Amino acid sequence: MSIDFKKAAEEFSTPLYIYDFKYMRSQYRALKEAFEGKKSLITYAVKANSNLSVIANFAKESSGADCVSIGEVKRALLAGIEPYKIIFSGVGKSYDEIKEALELKILMINTESEAELHLVEEVSKEIGIEARVSVRVNPNVDPKTHPYISTGLHENKFGVDIDMAKRMYIYSKNSDYLDPIGIHFHIGSQLTNLEPIAEAAQIIADLVRSLKAIDIDIKFFDFGGGLGIKYSDEILIDPKDYAEAIISATKGLDVTLVCEPGRYMSANGGYLVTKVLYEKINGSKRFTIVDAAMNDLLRPSLYNAYHKIESVERKDGKESPTDIVGPICESGDFLAKDTLMPPLEGGDLLVVNSAGAYGFTMASNYNTRGKACEVAYDNGEFRVIRRRESFEDLIEQERLYLKD
Amino acid sequence: MSIDFKKAAEEFSTPLYIYDFKYMRSQYRALKEAFEGKKSLITYAVKANSNLSVIANFAKESSGADCVSIGEVKRALLAGIEPYKIIFSGVGKSYDEIKEALELKILMINTESEAELHLVEEVSKEIGIEARVSVRVNPNVDPKTHPYISTGLHENKFGVDIDMAKRMYIYSKNSDYLDPIGIHFHIGSQLTNLEPIAEAAQIIADLVRSLKAIDIDIKFFDFGGGLGIKYSDEILIDPKDYAEAIISATKGLDVTLVCEPGRYMSANGGYLVTKVLYEKINGSKRFTIVDAAMNDLLRPSLYNAYHKIESVERKDGKESPTDIVGPICESGDFLAKDTLMPPLEGGDLLVVNSAGAYGFTMASNYNTRGKACEVAYDNGEFRVIRRRESFEDLIEQERLYLKD
Repeated sequence: MSIDFKKAAEEFSTPLYIYDFKYMRSQYRALKEAFEGKKSLITYAVKANSNLSVIANFAKESSGADCVSIGEVKRALLAGIEPYKIIFSGVGKSYDEIKEALELKILMINTESEAELHLVEEVSKEIGIEARVSVRVNPNVDPKTHPYISTGLHENKFGVDIDMAKRMYIYSKNSDYLDPIGIHFHIGSQLTNLEPIAEAAQIIADLVRSLKAIDIDIKFFDFGGGLGIKYSDEILIDPKDYAEAIISATKGLDVTLVCEPGRYMSANGGYLVTKVLYEKINGSKRFTIVDAAMNDLLRPSLYNAYHKIESVERKDGKESPTDIVGPICESGDFLAKDTLMPPLEGGDLLVVNSAGAYGFTMASNYNTRGKACEVAYDNGEFRVIRRRESFEDLIEQERLYLKD
Repeated sequence: MSIDFKKAAEEFSTPLYIYDFKYMRSQYRALKEAFEGKKSLITYAVKANSNLSVIANFAKESSGADCVSIGEVKRALLAGIEPYKIIFSGVGKSYDEIKEALELKILMINTESEAELHLVEEVSKEIGIEARVSVRVNPNVDPKTHPYISTGLHENKFGVDIDMAKRMYIYSKNSDYLDPIGIHFHIGSQLTNLEPIAEAAQIIADLVRSLKAIDIDIKFFDFGGGLGIKYSDEILIDPKDYAEAIISATKGLDVTLVCEPGRYMSANGGYLVTKVLYEKINGSKRFTIVDAAMNDLLRPSLYNAYHKIESVERKDGKESPTDIVGPICESGDFLAKDTLMPPLEGGDLLVVNSAGAYGFTMASNYNTRGKACEVAYDNGEFRVIRRRESFEDLIEQERLYLKD
C-alpha cells in the first residue's frame, strides 16, 4: 500500500477513515469509459459514502447522484453536482421531501409505489411544478446475493411489478402534472454475476418497447447499481462486459443509460485504521481488542460481512487465528472472526480494507463513542474532511434540555 | 395506554421517541426494594439509553451508573450521579479513558484482561492515584439468550476465567497502585431464566470466599445486569426471586450487592412513534412503509428482534399480515415482519413498543437521516429532552472542510 497509515494515525489519531480520492476517481472513469460512444450518466449512490468532499471528488468528474433522501439530494447539490444529474429514489419519500425535490429541479423522482406516484402528482399540482418521474420495476430476477441487499424479487419492499408499472406509466401519461421520462430497476448489491443483470435489462427494455408502442417515450434507462467489488476472492464483472450487456439489451432504444454505482466507486478506496488496545486469550480463543468498533463499521455485525484486515507494522511472526473485536459491550461487536494475524501488542496499527462504502455512513454513537475522523488522501497528502466527534458534540443538544 | 401519542406526534412530529419517566422510576424502585435490608447498589447501565435527562431521572432516585466508555462516565456525572456510585466496565478501555476515570474518582474500574489490569496499574503509578479495581470473571454458564448478547461463556471477548481472575487479584493485592475491591460477572442480556444466574452467583461467591482465605477482601459483589423484559410473551424473572438467589449465593459474605440493569429499567418505558407513509402490495405481500427506519431502531435488523407495534387510531377493520418497513434502501430495513395490522393509510400513526433501551443509543445517520426527537413524559406532560437533528446538524462539520 502506498498510503502511510502510520503517519496518518500519528497525525489524526484512531479510529480513522482514510479515502483514496484518486482510486475513487479511477473507478468512476472505468465505468464511464465502458459506456463510451453511448449516451450515459453515472449517478453516484450517495448512501455508500456521503461525505461532502467524497461527493465533490466525483462531482469534479461530472458525476451525477443517486439519492434516497432529501438530505442526500441537498448533499449532492452542496458538493457541486448539477441538479439535472440528480435522481431521487427510495420507497418512503415524504410530502415535504417530494416538494423540496421538485423545487430543486432535479432530473427525476423515481417512484416506488402507486400511492407514492399519486402523492407526487398531488404535490406537483399544489406547487405548480410538473414532476419528471420514473418507476422502479421489479424484474423478479434472483441476484444471488445477501438477502439483506437483494432487492429485485417480488417479496421485498422495493419497486412494483410490470403490470403495476404499466398502469403507473399510463396514469402519468394522462396526468397534467407528471412527466414519465425514466424507468428504473435494481436487483441487488454486490453483484458478481452478470447473467441476472442482463436478464433483468432485457425484461425492462422489452417493457420500454411496449410503452413506446402506446406513445410513452422513456428517455432514461436506469439499470441501478450493485456492481460487486473485491472484499476477498470474488470474481468480478468487467465494466466493459457490464456495459455490453446493457447496450445489447437496449438495442434500438434512444435512451440515456443511467448507472447508480455506490460501493463500486468508493468501497476499495476506503480504509479504517485502528489501534490494538489489548490482546487476550479466553479459554483457547485469541481476541485482539482494537479501538474501532461496530459503531464505526457495522457491516461485520449486521451482515457478517468480511473485511480484510492487515497489520501495518508487523509482517513477521507466526500467524494464528484471532477475533478482532471492539470495545463495545456486545458479543456482536467484532470486525473479523478467526482471521490470521501475527503476534500483536497494544499500540500496533491495523488496517481494515474495503471500508469506503457503508462504513462511516452507517456509524452510530453507541456506547457514547464519537464518530471517527475522516481524511482524504490525494496527491500524496492527507486532508481532514470531517473532524473526529468530541464528547461535547455528543451531549450538546441534550445538555440544553437537562433540568437541574 | 395513557400517553396521548397523537398529541405528541402533532407537537413534535415523527419519528419520535417518548420515554415514560414515571415507569422508568418504578422499575428502579422495584429492583431496589427487592434488595431491601441488604447493602445494595443499583447502577443503571447507561448504554441502554444514555440521554442525559433519562440518566438524571434515575440519579434523582439515588441510582448509580454502569458505564462502558469515558463518555458514559461523563454523561453519568453530568446527569447528577455521584462519582462513588459509578463503575467503568468494558473490554477496551484506552490509556486516556483510564486516566480520566481515575481523576474523576469513580467507585471502581472493572478490568477485563490481564493486559488491561497492567495498564491500569501503569496509569495509576504515573498520575499517583490508587486505582480501585474489580475483575470481570466468566463463570462459564450458558445464559440461553441471543448469541450476540450472550457474554458469560469462554468463547467470547468478555472477562477472564477463574484461574486468571485469581492471578489478577493476587497481582493487584501485591501492587502499590491497585486496590481490588470488587468482583464482577455478567452472563448475558434479556435473561428470562433464573437458574443460570443463580448458578453463576454461586460460582463467583465461592471465588470470593477463596479470595478471602488469602486475605483479599472483596467489598462489592457485582452480578451484572441482564434481567429480561417483556417484548412479547416472555415469562419474566420476579425481582424478588432474583434478589433472593443472589442473597442466598452470597450468604455469610459482607458485600454490597451491585446490580447493573439497563434494559430492565428503560426498555418498556420507551415508545417509538412513527407515521405511515404508504401502503403497498408487492406480489401477494403487504408492506406498510413508515417514516422510522433501521437508522432509528436497529434491533429488528441487527438481532431480528421483535417489537410489538400498534396502530394509534385504527382499532377496527380486518387485520392482515404486513411487513412494517422504513424508507432506507436496504431489504434489511424493517421494524416488523408479517405482523398483523388493520387496514392503514398514509398519515396513520403507529407505536413501536419496548423502544426505551437500545433504541436511540444505536441510532445512526444512515441515508442522511437526522436522529429522531426524544421526549420525556412525566406528570402528564411532554418535554423535549433532545431536539430532532436537522440537515444542517449533519453536514456542519463536513461543510467546513469542503473545498471549492
